[in-house]
Amino acid sequence: MRKIEHIGIAVRSLSTAIPLYEKLLNTPCYKTEEVEMEKVKTAFFATGENKIELLESTDPEGVIARYIDKKGEGIHHIAFDVEDIEAEMKRLQEEGFELLNPAPKRGADNKLVCFLHPKGTNGVLIELCMENRT
Amino acid sequence: MRKIEHIGIAVRSLSTAIPLYEKLLNTPCYKTEEVEMEKVKTAFFATGENKIELLESTDPEGVIARYIDKKGEGIHHIAFDVEDIEAEMKRLQEEGFELLNPAPKRGADNKLVCFLHPKGTNGVLIELCMENRT
Repeated sequence: MRKIEHIGIAVRSLSTAIPLYEKLLNTPCYKTEEVEMEKVKTAFFATGENKIELLESTDPEGVIARYIDKKGEGIHHIAFDVEDIEAEMKRLQEEGFELLNPAPKRGADNKLVCFLHPKGTNGVLIELCMENRT
Repeated sequence: MRKIEHIGIAVRSLSTAIPLYEKLLNTPCYKTEEVEMEKVKTAFFATGENKIELLESTDPEGVIARYIDKKGEGIHHIAFDVEDIEAEMKRLQEEGFELLNPAPKRGADNKLVCFLHPKGTNGVLIELCMENRT
């Protein structure tokens, strides 16, 4: 856990949320990207050494659509930058945290990612992410 | 909006959440502080240039207790460091954002703070914070 890499925010519509977050953060959205496997479109903003990632579902049954149905729009996860994702997954598992995916998977922004079960982290969905060097 | 200053997480009990977040973040809690006006006890962790702030209510009618009753434990707010809080409040109000407190108020960690209404920010409670120089 070197630092917060980004905060992921679930939104219904990027087309309205992007201009709103540009005003809020006073900085332009510098990238949008679709992650087909996760059924999301993402939009990124830089703030200090971190990023804000807006997430819109591309499928009414996708994880972000179901999150919004249940909880409404809002903060979905915190992603931490890690140096060695497999070592960090092993460390956290040994500390008693539950991993939602047993092997790193491909996320947005050329990352390998792993999520921790929020029931073991006071309701917070934590993502580990590492630059995909392959 | 210079950078993310901290992420606030609402928890039922600091006494169980502090050791858990020490394991998760692999870093010790470096400070706890009670903010009587806000009816919370807080605990801070450093991660990169940001902080994680755990919040426990000291009053069953406090804002954090009511948040947990309604939504469960989890991420409560994102705080952004600002250089001049009054100027940033004015800028955001002119952009159409609604302020929850019309004047800066005293927060934890020697900050002056102002919250934005989450209905105008896709369900995200945003805090502006500035070091209290007086």
